[in-house]
Amino acid sequence: MPSQPFAGVLVPVLTPFTAQGAPDAGRFAAFCRWLLDQGADGLAIFGTTSEANSMSAGERMRLLDGLVADGVPAARLMPGTGACSMTEATELVRHAVAHGCGGVLMLPPFYYKGMPEDGIFRFIAGVVDKVASPALRVYLYHIPPVAQVGFSLNLVGRFIAAYPTTVVGLKDSSGDWSNTAALLERFPGFAVFPGSEVFLLDALRKGGVGCITASGNVNVPGIRKVYENWQGPQADALQAEITNVRKTIQAYPMVPALKRIVAHFHQDPEWAAVRPPMVPLDPAQSRALIADLENIGFALGERQQQAA
Amino acid sequence: MPSQPFAGVLVPVLTPFTAQGAPDAGRFAAFCRWLLDQGADGLAIFGTTSEANSMSAGERMRLLDGLVADGVPAARLMPGTGACSMTEATELVRHAVAHGCGGVLMLPPFYYKGMPEDGIFRFIAGVVDKVASPALRVYLYHIPPVAQVGFSLNLVGRFIAAYPTTVVGLKDSSGDWSNTAALLERFPGFAVFPGSEVFLLDALRKGGVGCITASGNVNVPGIRKVYENWQGPQADALQAEITNVRKTIQAYPMVPALKRIVAHFHQDPEWAAVRPPMVPLDPAQSRALIADLENIGFALGERQQQAA
Repeated sequence: MPSQPFAGVLVPVLTPFTAQGAPDAGRFAAFCRWLLDQGADGLAIFGTTSEANSMSAGERMRLLDGLVADGVPAARLMPGTGACSMTEATELVRHAVAHGCGGVLMLPPFYYKGMPEDGIFRFIAGVVDKVASPALRVYLYHIPPVAQVGFSLNLVGRFIAAYPTTVVGLKDSSGDWSNTAALLERFPGFAVFPGSEVFLLDALRKGGVGCITASGNVNVPGIRKVYENWQGPQADALQAEITNVRKTIQAYPMVPALKRIVAHFHQDPEWAAVRPPMVPLDPAQSRALIADLENIGFALGERQQQAA
Repeated sequence: MPSQPFAGVLVPVLTPFTAQGAPDAGRFAAFCRWLLDQGADGLAIFGTTSEANSMSAGERMRLLDGLVADGVPAARLMPGTGACSMTEATELVRHAVAHGCGGVLMLPPFYYKGMPEDGIFRFIAGVVDKVASPALRVYLYHIPPVAQVGFSLNLVGRFIAAYPTTVVGLKDSSGDWSNTAALLERFPGFAVFPGSEVFLLDALRKGGVGCITASGNVNVPGIRKVYENWQGPQADALQAEITNVRKTIQAYPMVPALKRIVAHFHQDPEWAAVRPPMVPLDPAQSRALIADLENIGFALGERQQQAA
């Protein structure tokens, strides 16, 4: 298996919007730098948590342009390039490769349901063939609870066989540990990232390389502790802590809740804005969420906590 | 209820692609003119059957530009403007209004699942408010088997109340007659189009105004007979005929099958091309489909048949 550049804790970065609803490039770059400073190993910008599919391809590309211009290292970036059309997916992948991004995270085409597996193969393969760059590293994005279309084990095997130096990993947001375990068993050396830190320790023990998780937006230091100490005596206790934080947050709608947490702890109320079809937490939910987090002793980021 | 401009048989027009996979503007315009000549009352270009979600917003807009430049009357067009982002949906709607299209067919935002109804309302309302044109006529596109996200009866009522002169109709592709019947009962004067001619006669008898149906691509004359004679003694027999044609076609993957039929009867093999994730019928399926149609005495278009 050829080299693939990512491991550890990757964050599908929240996208801030202005009061007028436009992507906020300044807040976005500042937040990306803060996440790296918190210890994030990579930034999977433009994922589901990023509301990427509530942005146009052009908006996503301009945000990436701004991030790179701002000095965020492109090698640490794994932009999501999900689109229903090969036209847009190709444009997004080509743009990411031109910027030198470490990899891209590709959704299957998700509008049409019940398509033959061969059609999903042709879509991804068609984009890879059109971009035709030896620098391209593709991570498949398997998130059937949202996309409703996914990558079966057989299809993953077909991609690895056809593109061994290009299709190098997968984010498994199925929420189904048996699928993650099967991927790890069947494809040793293929970089499998569970889509939630709840499965991080289990995945590391089976050969997983890290995780790409929404709650990384607010808890990189906690999640990194599990990653750094997974072979140590405290591993299970550390995992229990981060699982507890995750479950506290996901009792609320996940993206609005994460944005509310950022708004609260960064003392920046504009951060709570979401784009439709998402709806922000109402004031009562917001208060309850923050109270729940205080009850479990959560503070935003170990390093920030130490500085306080 | 204010005027809405569509009634009768509307066709979600198939989109031809070249051998290189690009939208084929010339074949598209010729096919649109042929459909109007066959008696189509309107053309719902860029729907699910059109593989619209396998095209970029730019590709769709250029096809519409070409169609209007070619002389197809914009008032007869109801382009689909479905997109996951308000950014692209707004651009597509504004473009259609600028061309003088009779209306637009709007999908709900379909990437994120389980969103609050209020989020879906804010998305559509946000687009309508941004376009802010008294010429805009919106038809809601309810197709939960594909989009997985739909417009509930309550949500439809909310749109009618908020935008009585703008949100004037709905295409119901739920495949669930009880939903179509409930819409017709609850919102008299609101233009409800079943998404299949299988429900055409039932809908007309309850106040429906027509249908928007994939099989219109190959059977406008048959479907129009039901529309023209629904109060006559032959109505049920005519309905049985078109239902039989529909069921024969939909025993195969619908869009590849329709394109195969067009390729066969128009003697134009390139028409069979689809974009991934769709896959064309294989040669055996193609032969079986044409044989099935011959067995039920189907020929492409009454007028063409008479001319032969």
